[in-house]
Amino acid sequence: MVKKVLKFGGTSVGTTERIQHVAYIIKKEISAGNKVIAIVSAMAGKTNELIKLSEEISKEFDKRELDVLLSSGEQVTCALLSAALLKIKVKAKSWLNWQIPILTDGDHSNARIININIERINKYLDNNDVAIVPGFQGISKTGDITTIGRGGSDATAVAVAKIFKADTCEIYTDVDGVYSTDPNKIPVAKKIDKISFDEMLELSSLGAKVMQSSAVQTAMIYDIPLEVKSTFTERKGTKIFSQENIDYTKSVTGVAYSKDDAKITITGVEDRPGVAANIFEPLNKAQINVDMVIQNISSDTKTTDITFTVKRNDVQKTLQILKAKSEIKYKEIIKNQKVAKVSIVGAGMVSTPGVTYRMFRALSDENINILAISTSEIKLSVIIDEEKILKAIKKLHTIFELD
Amino acid sequence: MVKKVLKFGGTSVGTTERIQHVAYIIKKEISAGNKVIAIVSAMAGKTNELIKLSEEISKEFDKRELDVLLSSGEQVTCALLSAALLKIKVKAKSWLNWQIPILTDGDHSNARIININIERINKYLDNNDVAIVPGFQGISKTGDITTIGRGGSDATAVAVAKIFKADTCEIYTDVDGVYSTDPNKIPVAKKIDKISFDEMLELSSLGAKVMQSSAVQTAMIYDIPLEVKSTFTERKGTKIFSQENIDYTKSVTGVAYSKDDAKITITGVEDRPGVAANIFEPLNKAQINVDMVIQNISSDTKTTDITFTVKRNDVQKTLQILKAKSEIKYKEIIKNQKVAKVSIVGAGMVSTPGVTYRMFRALSDENINILAISTSEIKLSVIIDEEKILKAIKKLHTIFELD
Repeated sequence: MVKKVLKFGGTSVGTTERIQHVAYIIKKEISAGNKVIAIVSAMAGKTNELIKLSEEISKEFDKRELDVLLSSGEQVTCALLSAALLKIKVKAKSWLNWQIPILTDGDHSNARIININIERINKYLDNNDVAIVPGFQGISKTGDITTIGRGGSDATAVAVAKIFKADTCEIYTDVDGVYSTDPNKIPVAKKIDKISFDEMLELSSLGAKVMQSSAVQTAMIYDIPLEVKSTFTERKGTKIFSQENIDYTKSVTGVAYSKDDAKITITGVEDRPGVAANIFEPLNKAQINVDMVIQNISSDTKTTDITFTVKRNDVQKTLQILKAKSEIKYKEIIKNQKVAKVSIVGAGMVSTPGVTYRMFRALSDENINILAISTSEIKLSVIIDEEKILKAIKKLHTIFELD
Repeated sequence: MVKKVLKFGGTSVGTTERIQHVAYIIKKEISAGNKVIAIVSAMAGKTNELIKLSEEISKEFDKRELDVLLSSGEQVTCALLSAALLKIKVKAKSWLNWQIPILTDGDHSNARIININIERINKYLDNNDVAIVPGFQGISKTGDITTIGRGGSDATAVAVAKIFKADTCEIYTDVDGVYSTDPNKIPVAKKIDKISFDEMLELSSLGAKVMQSSAVQTAMIYDIPLEVKSTFTERKGTKIFSQENIDYTKSVTGVAYSKDDAKITITGVEDRPGVAANIFEPLNKAQINVDMVIQNISSDTKTTDITFTVKRNDVQKTLQILKAKSEIKYKEIIKNQKVAKVSIVGAGMVSTPGVTYRMFRALSDENINILAISTSEIKLSVIIDEEKILKAIKKLHTIFELD
């Protein structure tokens, strides 16, 4: 007997017709002799509808009550899917967060799953086929409903898969997998059959939003193989494994990008220990996420220039903080909000020499100026002029043989 | 400190604007030094919307899952009202059925409240002002969500008022009280200031649908004074007491009617003991509710005619059962589905001679033929031709000085 966790996102359960289709997908698994725990999101649009109601009451709607409000969305899907399964003679039952229970820690709207009681559901599955569990929520130690912030329903699916020792965890969504780059922008983008957790994380945090990053992180930590696939086609999806189970034939797996970055350069900063800390400590305190940092070597040995990137909507706050801090001495602050980040991602990069050189050469051939560079084991990112983003993605996708 | 249970029906919480209005009504009570437990229904239209979704899945939607589905409606109202109160600085909190818990017995969609744990809410109210509780639902001993059939949110309000030993139980609705007859049909209908439980029961079961009958019954049994009032006006409502607290100046309190009855006559039935039982036992078993029964004295002493009324949609089933029972011997079965029931209701009737006579005379004056009569302590009902219903109500309303 194979125990599967299947997660269905909002568009997959967006109408009662689609819910009935999901019931048939699950029935196939049952007919194949598997047991299923299905994690469901709220019907597409439903959560936004509830948020709209809350905003009509108050823009600062109480967080505890917002969780009570929003959690009703997944409850509705649970009941509908369970009844759709029962109708086609599959032994199914909805399990609400407090009936399991799914225990969480942390603040309302940003809780974290800390435990799931498996006993009752396991016993139930001895003589039944499907347990349907609402994603995105749990209850706190004080018995209040909480919604989980990072990862949402994906995080619930991974946590359930881990605790129930499921054989697979399949994420059903409205795309049929992870692509080598954005298929909406680059028509030659190709679906990736297998990808490592690390690569998936780099791709998704860089804009290829198929799954929530924190859910992938959890899956990586506990080595739970994932599969992302489409609810609407029968095609194979993308399998996400730990790196050692993948044979790399290519050095680069995908090209990711993001367009919400801004570059800030502080010139004429004193070149002595502690200066960088003086700059980045107050930004960190203000929860401004600094991404790339480059410190230029200056001809004048007493001063240096520091360049870094932040999210565009943090630019104003960043400038305010820097200007307010009297201990930061500088000549000038230059901001550039019209930049974009392009990254090549691939676990095979580390064993393939020359990837860096080939990337720089390719961009140079297209007359694209590199404004900043950052590297990691499996990723190489550059900041370029925003207008040249599409040209850059296309070129890199081609030269690394992803077309 | 006065402890009040306030119940708000679906139209009272039909929009976020109305919910905010309800928050102000509650705030007034808090400012007056009272503590409030608010019972809320789903927003108007919401339950029907959920039922529509369920019907898209299946007309025979699983009953357990239907309860899971429908109970989400009240949950949404609880969160919205609680946040609306917090916004205007009233210490409020939503309490879902399983958080209290409200324990129920009986089948899904038709459960009955058997207990409510008052401990946590009472403790909470020591330092806070309002507990918001979803109407119409509870959890079973097995921890499943159940909705309560008879009485709905009104029944929750009365049960909460009883168990919490509330000082008053106020039912906020979209009408401003109980009227002497249907104000939509008879413009001279007058709001009743005070009414006894018995009268209220007779009026509501006969068509004056302001409150659910079974909730009134429970209030009567435990002597919990009720008040029905409008959410939308500041006018006084109708107080519902036990009979001994009311001084009757009029013999008749109101005129009720219903138009979903049918009359069935079985002629030529043997006139011997046990015959009536033979007829009504199988109907009772089939859960057909027989209302009035009249046995005519026949000139032929060996046979008699039996007339009774049932709900119109039970007529076919009734005829089938009677025809199938070989032990019931008769000459003919005559059905009349175009009848209506008109009743005068009043706790003062018992002490006022001549009420019966005056009713019959009045109907006769209007040339209305009486097809059947039934009497009780506080009610006198007649079956008449459906077409004459309005004429009858008007006449009775006038002669018993209710205009």
